[in-house]
This record gives sequence, structure tokens and C-alpha cells, in this order.
Amino acid sequence: MARPVIALLSDFGSQDHYAGTMKGVALGICPDATLVDISHDVTPHDVLGGALQLAATYRYFPHGTVFLAVVDPGVGSKRRGLAADIGDYRLVAPDNGVLTAVFAETPPKKIVEITERRYGRPTVSRTFEGRDRFAPAAAWLAKGTQLTALGRPVQNYQTIELPEATLEADTIQGEVIRIDRFGNAVTNIYRKSFEHLANTGSVQIDAGDHRVERLVETYADIEDGEVCALFGSTDQLELAANAASAADQLTLERGSAVVVSRG
Amino acid sequence: MARPVIALLSDFGSQDHYAGTMKGVALGICPDATLVDISHDVTPHDVLGGALQLAATYRYFPHGTVFLAVVDPGVGSKRRGLAADIGDYRLVAPDNGVLTAVFAETPPKKIVEITERRYGRPTVSRTFEGRDRFAPAAAWLAKGTQLTALGRPVQNYQTIELPEATLEADTIQGEVIRIDRFGNAVTNIYRKSFEHLANTGSVQIDAGDHRVERLVETYADIEDGEVCALFGSTDQLELAANAASAADQLTLERGSAVVVSRG
Amino acid sequence: MARPVIALLSDFGSQDHYAGTMKGVALGICPDATLVDISHDVTPHDVLGGALQLAATYRYFPHGTVFLAVVDPGVGSKRRGLAADIGDYRLVAPDNGVLTAVFAETPPKKIVEITERRYGRPTVSRTFEGRDRFAPAAAWLAKGTQLTALGRPVQNYQTIELPEATLEADTIQGEVIRIDRFGNAVTNIYRKSFEHLANTGSVQIDAGDHRVERLVETYADIEDGEVCALFGSTDQLELAANAASAADQLTLERGSAVVVSRG
Repeated sequence: MARPVIALLSDFGSQDHYAGTMKGVALGICPDATLVDISHDVTPHDVLGGALQLAATYRYFPHGTVFLAVVDPGVGSKRRGLAADIGDYRLVAPDNGVLTAVFAETPPKKIVEITERRYGRPTVSRTFEGRDRFAPAAAWLAKGTQLTALGRPVQNYQTIELPEATLEADTIQGEVIRIDRFGNAVTNIYRKSFEHLANTGSVQIDAGDHRVERLVETYADIEDGEVCALFGSTDQLELAANAASAADQLTLERGSAVVVSRG
Repeated sequence: MARPVIALLSDFGSQDHYAGTMKGVALGICPDATLVDISHDVTPHDVLGGALQLAATYRYFPHGTVFLAVVDPGVGSKRRGLAADIGDYRLVAPDNGVLTAVFAETPPKKIVEITERRYGRPTVSRTFEGRDRFAPAAAWLAKGTQLTALGRPVQNYQTIELPEATLEADTIQGEVIRIDRFGNAVTNIYRKSFEHLANTGSVQIDAGDHRVERLVETYADIEDGEVCALFGSTDQLELAANAASAADQLTLERGSAVVVSRG
Repeated sequence: MARPVIALLSDFGSQDHYAGTMKGVALGICPDATLVDISHDVTPHDVLGGALQLAATYRYFPHGTVFLAVVDPGVGSKRRGLAADIGDYRLVAPDNGVLTAVFAETPPKKIVEITERRYGRPTVSRTFEGRDRFAPAAAWLAKGTQLTALGRPVQNYQTIELPEATLEADTIQGEVIRIDRFGNAVTNIYRKSFEHLANTGSVQIDAGDHRVERLVETYADIEDGEVCALFGSTDQLELAANAASAADQLTLERGSAVVVSRG
């Protein structure tokens, strides 16, 4: 039988022991697990940022993977802990919307509130539920425990507003949702919407205060000093430069407007 | 049989291959090992910082875990390499005090000096003993080698001074020992000492030059703009802000005084 | 049978999901793999930097390890993807020279161009071939697929110029090739060349604008405030300080001249 995979996402960073401690706890429960870091460098408390990273990667993991997503500004408050089944995957997270972007793509089949204390650590700290509640829950699921054993099903759960592009007859009003390590500025404008507009004639693309001159196929098509648009690995429009940061060159940050309009 | 766990802590950072190289060596000896990073971002040469991270996490790992702690300003000098058995865990480290905080909680049952060359790499570099001596020793232990096979038992070993709070009749004189990624300032004042003092009346908490107004249960209880005290996940008093850095707001750094006194 | 090891090197950084996504894909193909990060913090697009990190570490991994090296400024261009067999190891990378330094030490026995689509993901993005082509190829190799199944053998492949020291009768003209986390400045001057020159009399070492006073055995031999030369863990001359950055103290960067000459 394949070894179960637990994939971790958090805002815990790499200087502290926090992510390692969650892994230690998980291995105590499910020693066969393969642990994979998605990232622990989500900006502290950035639930939306975490949600978007998770949505960009989850479908590339093997079916059966359990995702443990702990970006949790409300740790210790009354916000619940959730475990969700979306068919091919299960996810464990605080009920604060960090799963919103995954659910928008793959609606959950079942969500439970994690209440059964036997699937947590004996003492649950109110300041590190990642260690005491969420990592154990993910490890029990990876080990074969049924979702419904963790607690009672819930119908309502917290969602956050995802920045979605506005489609109009002659324009798509989008925005930058993520700037990656290379300075590529990923937007919420999907290829499908873009092509629908572009089908009937030429379009122009404005990012922040700049007109983007060219839509290219890949990074290697961009000339030195140029900033172009292209569709990235999740089919979202992004602004990119040649071995340089498009975000710096166009002064883009998360939330910067990106508009596609008929030419 | 459960796969053995080797948990790694170092100041090697993430830009260089050093931590990966130690893992490659360990897997060559113990291919079944599950390798877990605690952190490789301990401040370079900060033995105390490494010691405190290790002490905060080790008990959350499965029994049998071997810890490999390489924060080693004295690499290549005559300082010895140690392997220690503390009952549920074994640890491998340079003899420079990096195990002090773990030993303060869980006294070692046996410590050996790592001298048997057959449990190291054939050629031992004097500039990377993590690769050539410590990673092999940890991997051999994980594979089942007895501690005493690595070398002769030692009675004396290096310790470092741990910053301990001073308990007086009306005050606890503590200090900040660690500032985490979120800017929480963790102190060396334990809940038990605090409660002993607070049992008999109200207390006040001063951190650096600031009076801390409130003791709360968890981060979510803190209002915007406020800095509060709370007991963190290891039952140590810490100063925390709401989605902001308490250390920045109160100008705290490691060593800053934190005093609890009768009100 | 030992579990196969896949060792990853990239310039993807740790804030984005990219490295995790490659791991998810690899585990979907080869669930038994042990995944080891060498580093994902290679400077973006720095093929030479990646090549040197890989060369410094690969021989410390167990025989059979598959290396996945994705530093790829030309992603999506016509540059090919390669899989190489060097005897004890196999490597998967874009054909851009990132394997040059490994090949310089261990000439490849066979190199194929990765063309067989069945060993990639069904849809290959032109902006994330690490996910869609390279990670799958590495995972198939780890799972037991023959190199030649991935595509047709090639005789020519891209190399980059490695900075090599110039050996003359009375001098070795070298340079700094890497500055590590501790500020140690590693050069391209090997112990063997140095000793050949030093055999016949005293030598002096100049790094940038500074005369280096002493050659020592290890970091612990260096006095406070001093910068010395020593041979590091790969037998290359490096400049090092005592618990401080030699690169900062001597204003060294990659490419700075280091000259050894007869005294």
C-alpha cells in the first residue's frame, strides 16, 4: 500500500521549530506518512495568501493526500477546526476561510468540526492548535481514521472573499493576486475569459499604470528590459519580465488593477 | 516496524547545500529514515538559540527519534562530538552546550564521546563534521547501533548558562529568550512561578520599558494595537500583539528584562 | 529494497508552492521515494550557482539517487530537457549547463533528451516544466524506468564556462565562486594545486585587495577579527573569519580575484 502523504502549508516560517513540531506530532500518530512542505513562508496571518497557494498546488498531489493548512490569526479563539473531504483529497484547517479557494474549485463532499478529543493531543494549548489539534487530526486521517470520527458534520463554514475578475462586454477588470519569488505578478484573469474577449478582435492589457505591449507564450519569449503578459502554470494571466521582476518594473503589488480591454 | 526518525537542527541556512548533504549521508547509512527539519535557520553560531529551539520541540517527536543538532562554532577544534541517551530519545551534537536545555529538563542517562571511526565517514573534514561525523553517528543510531558502540562514556560535558528567571518574594526577574517569526517575545518565566506569585494578589508585568496591561488566554483575545502577556505553547510567559510584532512595538530583543511583581 | 531517493535543487524559493508541487507530482508517480531538498534558494536564474551547489553535494548521496535540478531561465523555450546517467547517479535537468560542474568531475555515461510524452504530465505547461516534465521524469527513473525509455540519446549538450583557476609557474590565479551563509568565500583553488606551488617554498595569498596572513586548518583556529585561508569541506581554498563574515570583512563577492603566489 502506498504510504500516505501529508502536505503542510503554514505561516510559521523557517526560523522557529513550529513546523517541525507539527511534523513530529504527525509522525507519532502516523509513522508511515510522507511529509511534504508546500510552504511555511506564507505572510504571517495572510489567510487569503495561504488559500491561493493551496489552491494552486493541491491537485498535483497524489489522490489520498491530506492537506494540513495552518494560517490561523484566530488561534485559541472560538473559531472551529475543520476537516473536509473533497473526494480525492482531505484537508484539515482552522475554520477561517483558508480552504475557500480550494472549495471554489472542488466543492466539499463533507465537512466536520474537529471535536473528538481523542484525536487531538491530551492537552490542547490555546496558542498552538496546529500542534495539538490540527496536526493530530491530519495524521489520524492519513492513518485511515474516517472523517466523521473526528466530529459532527457542519453545513456552514467561514469563507473569505476571493478576488475575482469582473467580466464585462468589452473589458475584464482583474487584479494582481500574488507576486512570486521571481517577481512574476499573477492575476485572477483566467485564460478562458481572456480568450472569450480576445476572440473577436485585438485586446490591450494594462497593469497598474502601464500598458503591456505583448502577450507571449512563455518567459523565454520576453526580451531584455521588456515586461510581457503570459498565461502561467495555472492558466492565469501574469505579468513577467526577462530574468527580472515584473512587479518591481511596473510597481505592482497584490491588489494592483490589471485590465484587459478591446483594442 | 516503524521507520526511524532523524530530526535535524542547524545554523546552516537554506541557500547552501549543507543540510541536504547531511541528509544524503544519513540516507546512505539508514535508507529507511524519515528526516524532519526542525530548523536550519538558527542564527549562525548561536548555540543558546539552537539549544532553546531543541528544548521547545523534542518531546513532541515520536519516542526513538534521533536528534542531530549541529550549531558548531568550534568545528574542527578539539571539542568532542557527543551522542546522548535521554531515555525516550537520543541526540547527537558537538560538545558545546547545545544540548544543555534538553538535559535541564530530561537528564541524560548516558553520554558517549563519538570516537569510533567506523561510524563516521572514511575521511573526516575538519570543516564539516556535520557531514562526516555527526550525520553518520545519528544515522547509525537510527539504524539500530547501540550508543556505546560509538565511543566511550563520558561524565563531563560542556554546558552553557541558560537564562533562568530569578524568583524573589515579590517579583520574578525574567527576560526575553526568543523572538519568533510573528514577533512574539517568549520569556523564561514559567506559568508555575507566575501563578505562585499571582495566587496571593494582583501582579503587574513590565517588559523592557513598558507596563503590559493585560494577561490574556490566547492571541485572539488581544485587541488591535494592544500588547498583552499570555502563556504560550510551552507554558512560558510571552508578550504578543494582535497580528503585529510585540517585539517591535515594545522594542524588545533577546535579553530584554521582563519583570513580574506584586501589584 | 532501499527506498529510492530524489534530491531536489532549484531557484524556486520557499514562499511559493512550486517546490512542493514538484514533490506532489513526483510522489504521484513514485510513492516510495524519499525526497530531499538540497536547496531551493539558488539565486533566481543563476545556473552557475546551481551547478556549483549540485557538484558540491551529489557524491554524498546514496548510490542510485536521482537528482532533479531545475534552475531554468529558458523555461518554455526550445532548450531540451535532459536525463543523464553518470554511473552511480542519474540526473534530470534542463539542457542549460546546470549539470556542467557535475559532468566535469564525473563524465556522463549516457544522456538522453526527454521526449517521451508518456513520462511527463498529460498537459505540459510552457511555464512550469519542472512540474510537468522534469519532476515526472525524475520520479519515473526513481521508480525503475530505464533512462533510454525517456527519449533518444544525445551527444551534444549545453555547457557553461566554469570559473577555473589559472595555474602558472609562480602563481595561481583564482576567484571566489560562492559565498556561503556564514560569509565564507569559497574559491576555485584546489588543495592539490595549492600544495604543488607551496611545496617548494612559502606562498602568499591575496583576496581582493587584502593580503591574507595565515593559512589554518579549520575555523576554530582563526582569532577574533582575523580573516584566514583554509581548505573547506570540498578541498577548495576559502577565506573565513571567526564567527563573522570574511566576505564582508574583505569586501569579496563572487568573481573577486584570489591569487596565490610564491612569497
